[in-house]
Amino acid sequence: MIEFALFGAGRIGKIHASNLVRQPGVRLKYVVDMHVPSAQALAQMHGAQLADVVQALGDPAVGAVVIASSTNTHADLIIAAANAGKAVFCEKPVDLTVARSRESAEAVRRNGVLCMIGFQRRFDPTFAALKARIERGEIGDPEMLIVTSRDPGAPPAEYIRSSGGIFRDMLIHDLDVFRWIMGDNAQTLHATGSCLTDSAVREAGDIDSTAVTIRTKNGLLCQINTSRRAAYGYDQRFEVLGSKGMLQAGNVRPTEVSAWSAGGISVDVPEPFFLERYRQAYAAEMAHFVEALTKGTPVRTTIEDGVRALELAELATLSWKKGMALELRSDGEIEAMTEA
Amino acid sequence: MIEFALFGAGRIGKIHASNLVRQPGVRLKYVVDMHVPSAQALAQMHGAQLADVVQALGDPAVGAVVIASSTNTHADLIIAAANAGKAVFCEKPVDLTVARSRESAEAVRRNGVLCMIGFQRRFDPTFAALKARIERGEIGDPEMLIVTSRDPGAPPAEYIRSSGGIFRDMLIHDLDVFRWIMGDNAQTLHATGSCLTDSAVREAGDIDSTAVTIRTKNGLLCQINTSRRAAYGYDQRFEVLGSKGMLQAGNVRPTEVSAWSAGGISVDVPEPFFLERYRQAYAAEMAHFVEALTKGTPVRTTIEDGVRALELAELATLSWKKGMALELRSDGEIEAMTEA
Amino acid sequence: MIEFALFGAGRIGKIHASNLVRQPGVRLKYVVDMHVPSAQALAQMHGAQLADVVQALGDPAVGAVVIASSTNTHADLIIAAANAGKAVFCEKPVDLTVARSRESAEAVRRNGVLCMIGFQRRFDPTFAALKARIERGEIGDPEMLIVTSRDPGAPPAEYIRSSGGIFRDMLIHDLDVFRWIMGDNAQTLHATGSCLTDSAVREAGDIDSTAVTIRTKNGLLCQINTSRRAAYGYDQRFEVLGSKGMLQAGNVRPTEVSAWSAGGISVDVPEPFFLERYRQAYAAEMAHFVEALTKGTPVRTTIEDGVRALELAELATLSWKKGMALELRSDGEIEAMTEA
Amino acid sequence: MIEFALFGAGRIGKIHASNLVRQPGVRLKYVVDMHVPSAQALAQMHGAQLADVVQALGDPAVGAVVIASSTNTHADLIIAAANAGKAVFCEKPVDLTVARSRESAEAVRRNGVLCMIGFQRRFDPTFAALKARIERGEIGDPEMLIVTSRDPGAPPAEYIRSSGGIFRDMLIHDLDVFRWIMGDNAQTLHATGSCLTDSAVREAGDIDSTAVTIRTKNGLLCQINTSRRAAYGYDQRFEVLGSKGMLQAGNVRPTEVSAWSAGGISVDVPEPFFLERYRQAYAAEMAHFVEALTKGTPVRTTIEDGVRALELAELATLSWKKGMALELRSDGEIEAMTEA
Repeated sequence: MIEFALFGAGRIGKIHASNLVRQPGVRLKYVVDMHVPSAQALAQMHGAQLADVVQALGDPAVGAVVIASSTNTHADLIIAAANAGKAVFCEKPVDLTVARSRESAEAVRRNGVLCMIGFQRRFDPTFAALKARIERGEIGDPEMLIVTSRDPGAPPAEYIRSSGGIFRDMLIHDLDVFRWIMGDNAQTLHATGSCLTDSAVREAGDIDSTAVTIRTKNGLLCQINTSRRAAYGYDQRFEVLGSKGMLQAGNVRPTEVSAWSAGGISVDVPEPFFLERYRQAYAAEMAHFVEALTKGTPVRTTIEDGVRALELAELATLSWKKGMALELRSDGEIEAMTEA
Repeated sequence: MIEFALFGAGRIGKIHASNLVRQPGVRLKYVVDMHVPSAQALAQMHGAQLADVVQALGDPAVGAVVIASSTNTHADLIIAAANAGKAVFCEKPVDLTVARSRESAEAVRRNGVLCMIGFQRRFDPTFAALKARIERGEIGDPEMLIVTSRDPGAPPAEYIRSSGGIFRDMLIHDLDVFRWIMGDNAQTLHATGSCLTDSAVREAGDIDSTAVTIRTKNGLLCQINTSRRAAYGYDQRFEVLGSKGMLQAGNVRPTEVSAWSAGGISVDVPEPFFLERYRQAYAAEMAHFVEALTKGTPVRTTIEDGVRALELAELATLSWKKGMALELRSDGEIEAMTEA
Repeated sequence: MIEFALFGAGRIGKIHASNLVRQPGVRLKYVVDMHVPSAQALAQMHGAQLADVVQALGDPAVGAVVIASSTNTHADLIIAAANAGKAVFCEKPVDLTVARSRESAEAVRRNGVLCMIGFQRRFDPTFAALKARIERGEIGDPEMLIVTSRDPGAPPAEYIRSSGGIFRDMLIHDLDVFRWIMGDNAQTLHATGSCLTDSAVREAGDIDSTAVTIRTKNGLLCQINTSRRAAYGYDQRFEVLGSKGMLQAGNVRPTEVSAWSAGGISVDVPEPFFLERYRQAYAAEMAHFVEALTKGTPVRTTIEDGVRALELAELATLSWKKGMALELRSDGEIEAMTEA
Repeated sequence: MIEFALFGAGRIGKIHASNLVRQPGVRLKYVVDMHVPSAQALAQMHGAQLADVVQALGDPAVGAVVIASSTNTHADLIIAAANAGKAVFCEKPVDLTVARSRESAEAVRRNGVLCMIGFQRRFDPTFAALKARIERGEIGDPEMLIVTSRDPGAPPAEYIRSSGGIFRDMLIHDLDVFRWIMGDNAQTLHATGSCLTDSAVREAGDIDSTAVTIRTKNGLLCQINTSRRAAYGYDQRFEVLGSKGMLQAGNVRPTEVSAWSAGGISVDVPEPFFLERYRQAYAAEMAHFVEALTKGTPVRTTIEDGVRALELAELATLSWKKGMALELRSDGEIEAMTEA
């Protein structure tokens, strides 16, 4: 029986909690959230206790933690949990800065604890099946990746102001998909973007529409297009062109009804947003974490993956701000970038 | 808290149990199955006790039963449970004979207990959405229903011999879909069929491929085609033509991957069989039953629905055997049939 | 150079004329139509002359005729043309009666002339590709055929009154598709139908919605559903289930635009009606006829096919009127039918 | 009656000839090609005469020319034809250099002749319908354009060496689509690429895989991905995200057959290459040209469009070679570019 502490009793915390307690050999012991009513409600639902960080991490019975609190607490909690010898599951991103992310990763390495970052897309049935088919050689060598990633609508300006910007907040997932699917390191990156959907985004110093291009060390190409708004809902697709064919990952629809009328033949729009779209992925990633803990197997999305995706997001932010394509130095993706 | 007894700890019993225990305000108290190891394993998983029928129905704490045992026990259990004043959820079919089905329905009526038959398709998200859209008038008046219903492969000959024949065993669902979607009573029915996939089916006195046509009292038309074998998997589609348009219910696929190769552009075959295809439907029907129990609301699939579907199955069997179209007498769907 | 006479300068006559003159080695010499302005206009467009039937058939330079006049003239013209030794391309149906059709076929046989009936669907690229794939064994042995055939709207009551009824007028194509695709003879046939779309159809003594089931000598099954009205346009689909898989023939759309909006993801409705849907098929069938003429090869759709399809249409009409399934006597599809 | 001279009797010349002669009020008088057998065959097929350039342009009866000869002759022929007062239809590109293209455009302007460049994609039924729907406001304001453009296989190295490079040869079409669909001027452009499919391409100094990003003056975004090789055939898609929805233009398939087997549900790959894919577009553009000539209406694809697309192609080539994003000076798209 592995006992868990959960940090964060908000929307995503609740999802992780309910997925966690369904795993065999697991017990949720503590729920930690400064917002006591949320913590209390969630604790009660799962038979857990309220605690603060010190209590939760100080209890030697606790073997693992789930970090689902606000982004600015992630690094501190990872480091504290790692130092306390706990295994860590942490929502993305590790942090909004590369420096602090690397410190978190270093703490994890130093303490030798298992640490998984919640890049749930890697656990989506469609995306995971596509990746497996690439690995089986179905399309030969991957050459190009085209990612379309659009939210149904922009979040409140307040959220945007503390989000770290669209590249760190939203594209972090797409950049992780790039790394996962193409299995090659970025060499040059170009990002541009605009504020097209909501002037509040501009006032918050951010953009809502982006176009990113990555060229890898082996010359593979990746284009990512994102928008904070798609009138038709949450749009999550990508396609991989390989030497022998192409694989596409399409959206998931709530139902398989087709309606034929004089105006056209129509099917449902995609699932409304990430909670619905990635419901199975959230369940699968938690099962994967618990299985790794139990069996001592590695996790699919390590803290290094979290650091690398953040580095790319930072690079994209810089490229956008400078209006330049940027190149990564040959001595390491994580080290530095020079002008092209 | 409503306490339940479950009869039948086989494949479908396990599904119902796991969906049942997720409902709020419910406890699974007893598991009843002559195969003790199965009963024991399932009881243990859900913290229930072993019992026999008498014990389970004799316990006044038990408010409701789930009948998931073999078909030949359904009618006895429904009647016994109804007489004991328990609410009943029973897997389809009510029985393999119309007479016994009607006795079961009569027992339910006499005792005034809630009784729901497990026509899970009515709870499938796609099918239910389609029905709701008809009711909202999206396609005007329904005129024609085309049902395609194909299993991935024939069951063992042994199963077929005790199944009551393809019309009672397999088409019972499609006939219920007809009644539900068209909302009109059958007036004439023609059924034909063949044994095309497996000579073992013929030796068991049955057929594996059928073509049924129903004309309703209002002249609406329904065609059902079924096969015990589809090389590409479990195929469950229907379409409703109405005066203002058409609605189609398509298959559900495990993933949304499309593969583009020189040989074509391909997507996944449908979910392999009913347990996967109707996973959400099984969950939703149990939630519906518990909600009806709790709130005192009616159930969507009554025992009368079970009797009516069986009557149509019996009519289809007779039509096939006689090679004739049959008509239902005007004094009631359930009464009699005369030659056209 | 083969010289042609064309009978009928209406809508379909114009199409055949324009397809004909594109063939190499062909000249349209005469256009015959009692409606002189139509004949004149069409003759002028293609550099042909006006003529009457006697003139056209009496000219020894004329090697072949295209019959695109009204249905009630087909048999007379086929017989006259055959007796004059001309090759014949005739629009479907041969005639509205089986007896007269057979006489026409007999005249063709007696005179040894080439005769092709315009079942253009067999020349549609989608349908022809599907048939070829069946013949290559892609789905093993065909077992079931499901045909959906819906017009965008009912023709004027006047047309219906002289049409011979929906089975002879509209289903004749679907019945030919059945014969062509399944490659087996009908043994029993059941037809039913209703008048659901327009009371003018009922007043004309006809129905507008039908459901036909055919069982072949080898036990293969075919279901055909038709309607005179589909709010979304002209709907022409069929699917063939075989022992190793299934092939579907879908509709053809004018464009490949998909529109994603909050209300759904929609594509175009099918091509509006048969002239657009089968444009390529009309061109291909005329090329096929001219090629057969030129090279002495057989035609794909003989007058026997025309007779057989009409027999099935007549059988369907009778089945509908009697409300009975009908069986074909074992001594020949064309001979007689007895009650089941 | 407008008399035409055709320059170039190769593959595309034949297509233009056959589309041209179908137009009313048009006669093909001369075919000009240094390869006499080709010229002769084509002239004979359409009842035209052989001629050389001087003869053809010197004949005052000739009102218009179609230029379908090799790219390096386009500019000379446009200028000569314009100076001779002939209307001009010229295949894309105008020339491989911006300077010579501008000279050609200047000759056209100076002589006031009608000149149309063969950007046939604008006449494709799917693409044209999509554009019309944008103009009707269906998706609000366009924000992003994603273009996928992949050839089935790389041309011979010899072709590539004289092609002007992938941006001028292949992306010229996609860049025109960008200008046409987005209706805004490029402000910054970033292009990158690789040689992934065939080392012969690299040896020819070119690349075969590209990723281009354009940001317009109004901040609209466009991403284009291209490859010289797609194992599944010719892939021509684009999608436009707007403030109110999205429109996608999909590939065209030869047939609408779907095949369902244990391995998946598959449809045809797209039409094999541009001659098949854009058959209708080639016909429509020639009809458009003749109509413009006859009615005095403007053409949809002017020589200015040809110049602008080439400017973007040159910009893309430069961006790729320098590894930099480039910006267009505010005083005109065609003038200059400075480093970002």
